[in-house]
Amino acid sequence: MNVVKTENVKNSVFKLKQLLGRSLEAVDQEIINRLNKSIPLINDIGKHLINASGKRLRPLLTLAMAAQFNDYSKNPIILAAAVEFIHTATLLHDDVVDESNLRRGEKTANIIWGNEYSVLAGDFLFAQSFELMVETKSIEALSILASAACKITQGEFQQMQIANKPETSQEVYFEVIGKKTAELFGASCKSGVIVAGGNIEQQNAAYDYGFNLGLAFQIVDDLMDFNNLPNKMGKNLGDDFKLGKTTLPVILAWQKSNAKEKKFWIKTLKELNQESDDFINAIEIFNKYNIFEICKKKTQEFISMSIKCLEKLPDTEIKNYLIGLANESVERSK
Amino acid sequence: MNVVKTENVKNSVFKLKQLLGRSLEAVDQEIINRLNKSIPLINDIGKHLINASGKRLRPLLTLAMAAQFNDYSKNPIILAAAVEFIHTATLLHDDVVDESNLRRGEKTANIIWGNEYSVLAGDFLFAQSFELMVETKSIEALSILASAACKITQGEFQQMQIANKPETSQEVYFEVIGKKTAELFGASCKSGVIVAGGNIEQQNAAYDYGFNLGLAFQIVDDLMDFNNLPNKMGKNLGDDFKLGKTTLPVILAWQKSNAKEKKFWIKTLKELNQESDDFINAIEIFNKYNIFEICKKKTQEFISMSIKCLEKLPDTEIKNYLIGLANESVERSK
Repeated sequence: MNVVKTENVKNSVFKLKQLLGRSLEAVDQEIINRLNKSIPLINDIGKHLINASGKRLRPLLTLAMAAQFNDYSKNPIILAAAVEFIHTATLLHDDVVDESNLRRGEKTANIIWGNEYSVLAGDFLFAQSFELMVETKSIEALSILASAACKITQGEFQQMQIANKPETSQEVYFEVIGKKTAELFGASCKSGVIVAGGNIEQQNAAYDYGFNLGLAFQIVDDLMDFNNLPNKMGKNLGDDFKLGKTTLPVILAWQKSNAKEKKFWIKTLKELNQESDDFINAIEIFNKYNIFEICKKKTQEFISMSIKCLEKLPDTEIKNYLIGLANESVERSK
Repeated sequence: MNVVKTENVKNSVFKLKQLLGRSLEAVDQEIINRLNKSIPLINDIGKHLINASGKRLRPLLTLAMAAQFNDYSKNPIILAAAVEFIHTATLLHDDVVDESNLRRGEKTANIIWGNEYSVLAGDFLFAQSFELMVETKSIEALSILASAACKITQGEFQQMQIANKPETSQEVYFEVIGKKTAELFGASCKSGVIVAGGNIEQQNAAYDYGFNLGLAFQIVDDLMDFNNLPNKMGKNLGDDFKLGKTTLPVILAWQKSNAKEKKFWIKTLKELNQESDDFINAIEIFNKYNIFEICKKKTQEFISMSIKCLEKLPDTEIKNYLIGLANESVERSK
């Protein structure tokens, strides 16, 4: 097994951010410069979101992958900013589609500025991301990120189509989160290796690392709807449940449920007829069937695959932290 | 003066479509193929819109510009499809933002499928356009179209900000329609010359032709809200008026209006307090000050500039039709 023990790597993201501190600052500066060049209201909405996020996980991956090839130049920085713009654009449109009102503890843009401005601001960030990418003059990097952007929207479509359907197969679920979440993780990693001059095998290894990490990341996100403190991530506990979103815990619970429990899921998730203690009832069914543990095991499998892919990349200090980052992503859910 | 007499060119668009028929068919095929490769619902929404439009004016410009350099190859066809995707994406999001229910005589996508799917379908078409552009491997073409996409969203933001403000200056109005409409016309033309191997001077001439044509086109569109038959274009007569949109006729009328008329505009356009005969009253004020004639004169000026730019491009049969196409765009409003 390639899984590094958790105690050794607990602060890998922190250490990675320290190591790449100058580049990350340059990414933030690039983001601010682009927003400043736009019209004032876009600037406000953009900064609200960019500040509200702050994890910068995807740009960190782009920078780290390039840094493995000793590339700390302008190109990975520009790509990292582009990746963050794509991610932020999808968040803006997601919140419009989901009619969300809270993200990471802050009011969402659609609540503050209205849906119209959120749609347009998302479009701007998305278009701006391509303007940034063009500056790298790398058709290959553009290609992988354009493809990811396309798949994200397809994944979101499919996510809407499987909503309120706990009978959805795991296979379909993994296809959806692959497109919706994992593709951009993969493309963030691969594009960093591309502009840093890694070979095709290394590019693909970086993509696979990111893709598997993204799958794990999404499952953990699904879990957090049920068993995390709301003030920790600023996401309302039970938001997905309220909307009847089809997430991994729900799919697994449906498969194991008896007739009475299936009726409960039909009432709460398909008909969205929810009473005040139904969220607690749902968690009880999850606990009865060890659903959270099964989900965490699945996450571990993706993390192990993710870490295995790193074998094909140069042995650097950065790589150790990328292993750690993957392991830490499972920790998020504890 | 370079303006060709109208009677000679009445059917330039028709003739251009005949001359470039095979390429246009290939564009349509490319569009259909891309939509077929996506998931079924995106396919439905995409085809609804692509069929509902049908003018294919922007792709026609890309193809015509490339054809002036004798390039009938795959690259201009791919770019033309990308341009149509960008245009269609903006229409989808426009209709969400404006809460429109009718476009070119057809129900809008937001009415049929809802805002959520319209937002996501627009995102898909937009991302797909970049996937297409990447295939041409032309960073220059990507650059001009990414920049146009960025400016479109800025223009739409600004358009929302000047809504219900008939006191807006002409200068600001032209800046807004420049970004919102004319940039994509310019980029459609320029990208065609880029992939066909035209020099920088020719690329810029093509851009200027398209940009000025786009300005004229938008003014004519503004006019049609007031004096065209609704079933001719499928746009509801008076839609812009109902929303209090700040268009050229409104700006010019405001500037000339006396105190009583200004009060009328404040009531109808700023406060959106409209009675059933207010639309007729508005047209009466327009007629009193010859607003429609002034707008048409302005359109003619842009068309003349547009045609003048063509001097720097090769003398071909296509060029004569591009002159005709420009002149015909004024005719739309008659």
